[in-house]
Amino acid sequence: MSLTVVGSVAFDALETPFGKRDKVLGGAATHFGLSASFFTKVNAVGVVGGDFGDDEWAVFKRHNINTDDIEIVPEGKTFFWSGRYDYDMNSAQTLDTQLNVFETFEPHLSENSKGANLLFLANIQPTLQLGVREQCKNAEFVAMDTMNYWITSTKDDLIETIKSVDCIIINDAEARQLTDEPSIYKAAKKIMDLGLKAVVIKRGEYGATLFTKDGYFATPAYPLESVFDPTGAGDTFAGGFMGYLASQKEITDDTMRRAMIYGSVMASFNVEKFGTERVDELDYPEINQRFKDFKQMTHFDNIPFEKTAAA
Amino acid sequence: MSLTVVGSVAFDALETPFGKRDKVLGGAATHFGLSASFFTKVNAVGVVGGDFGDDEWAVFKRHNINTDDIEIVPEGKTFFWSGRYDYDMNSAQTLDTQLNVFETFEPHLSENSKGANLLFLANIQPTLQLGVREQCKNAEFVAMDTMNYWITSTKDDLIETIKSVDCIIINDAEARQLTDEPSIYKAAKKIMDLGLKAVVIKRGEYGATLFTKDGYFATPAYPLESVFDPTGAGDTFAGGFMGYLASQKEITDDTMRRAMIYGSVMASFNVEKFGTERVDELDYPEINQRFKDFKQMTHFDNIPFEKTAAA
Repeated sequence: MSLTVVGSVAFDALETPFGKRDKVLGGAATHFGLSASFFTKVNAVGVVGGDFGDDEWAVFKRHNINTDDIEIVPEGKTFFWSGRYDYDMNSAQTLDTQLNVFETFEPHLSENSKGANLLFLANIQPTLQLGVREQCKNAEFVAMDTMNYWITSTKDDLIETIKSVDCIIINDAEARQLTDEPSIYKAAKKIMDLGLKAVVIKRGEYGATLFTKDGYFATPAYPLESVFDPTGAGDTFAGGFMGYLASQKEITDDTMRRAMIYGSVMASFNVEKFGTERVDELDYPEINQRFKDFKQMTHFDNIPFEKTAAA
Repeated sequence: MSLTVVGSVAFDALETPFGKRDKVLGGAATHFGLSASFFTKVNAVGVVGGDFGDDEWAVFKRHNINTDDIEIVPEGKTFFWSGRYDYDMNSAQTLDTQLNVFETFEPHLSENSKGANLLFLANIQPTLQLGVREQCKNAEFVAMDTMNYWITSTKDDLIETIKSVDCIIINDAEARQLTDEPSIYKAAKKIMDLGLKAVVIKRGEYGATLFTKDGYFATPAYPLESVFDPTGAGDTFAGGFMGYLASQKEITDDTMRRAMIYGSVMASFNVEKFGTERVDELDYPEINQRFKDFKQMTHFDNIPFEKTAAA
């Protein structure tokens, strides 16, 4: 099955306790697309400026990502974000945001992008997300992300957009903020009640949880001693999740569970180097080995305790 | 195999968003012993005052816990702790601590308690823990807990005590504080290097992780929409963990993994009501059902992604 992603393509300047980069390829659609490309054919929809160069395009090409719908504004500059992480790598401090060509971004989807079986609406303005969702009438499974900014500024639009999709993939703080519920279990239930098939909550170093109508699934994060650069981890997770689902014949509870693991696998690689560096160089044996590691680190035998009285 | 626990027996006054209790049975040895009693024969070592009444003794009796080594100081009062939890149930605010008879507690172990195969040193002064450990020469598997107070005030003694045991069961903040390592993976490795066989790190609502020489195991917490009273959850976890190990013929990586789940199962029940109320009334079908729930919520099929090129 094919997969379309709509979202930002960007340059990032990053500072972490482990080093510094002035300009690396970033953006939600980039991280998502790269991650998903290991599992399926990806169409990326976005916008870049004239400063987007051959090296950047080469990353998309290497991974066979269809960039026909990445609009180029030759006189404009690509979206730029600059951030710093301290030793607590769970949250970034934004140093600078220059929306540039992204400020007036209006997604234009070719028939090819519109015809994808799966669609991911990365974090952009909710009404734009809704517009894209409505153009992709035949998409069988649509997922979306969002952020605190939209929850605060355009909550009603956001709720309408959520009602139009099958799945939301957000972090725990966003789930709490969206629902005013301190418990993520109650928060997830409230979001499910908007008519979703699945709610995925990303919990950073604590892993991720999947809520479906009948089920609950939790996976820990991969035990990394050092997180080098967490930028894009959430989108890389979503890319592994949606990419894997697109590679399967059916979207079932079982395939979604494995998709959670492949998402976690891809995110764990993403944070090992700056920007897209690590995922760009990945191969299948590495992916499969880490999938196996997740199985190994969560497996236990299902043996009930049979005693009927404390003896 | 038999199991001895040394630690506090107490009265607690508790205030949570869900209610209030002026005086409930508590203490580390109590919560641990009750939890472990579902899996094995427990000897409890502690001290209480003349105010410890028939209702309290009855709880131990109901669960067939050997209380011969719980000393009674008729003219003294039982250790009393008063605490409050706000909506963030992860940390308690201590309102009052009256050590009473616990202030001069010196554990006296009968031959029976000394002869146990497994020993748990609940959170007390490290030199007292070490003294008990040395009296139990034949214990095959000794685990301990501690707290921030001892890490700050008597770190050298604490390190000596840790070196004498096989396993430590502490929470993530304590692991970080003990090792000055923000990463719990690095922290666990540093603690392992003191000569332990296993390090168990409790992460509250995020579950628990087990580090052994060759392996790593992670379990989420049970998804409870409401945590009624978290007091004693850590000791209840430890009781399920050690109690289950005591019920097994051998302590292996496999039995420790299941012990992690039984620990999580027991802790998840503990927080459903005040004090010991919920664990006191538990039965085996409930325990086995929740164990099964843990399997269900963490299981995925180990199917590698076989594609060798993004198509």
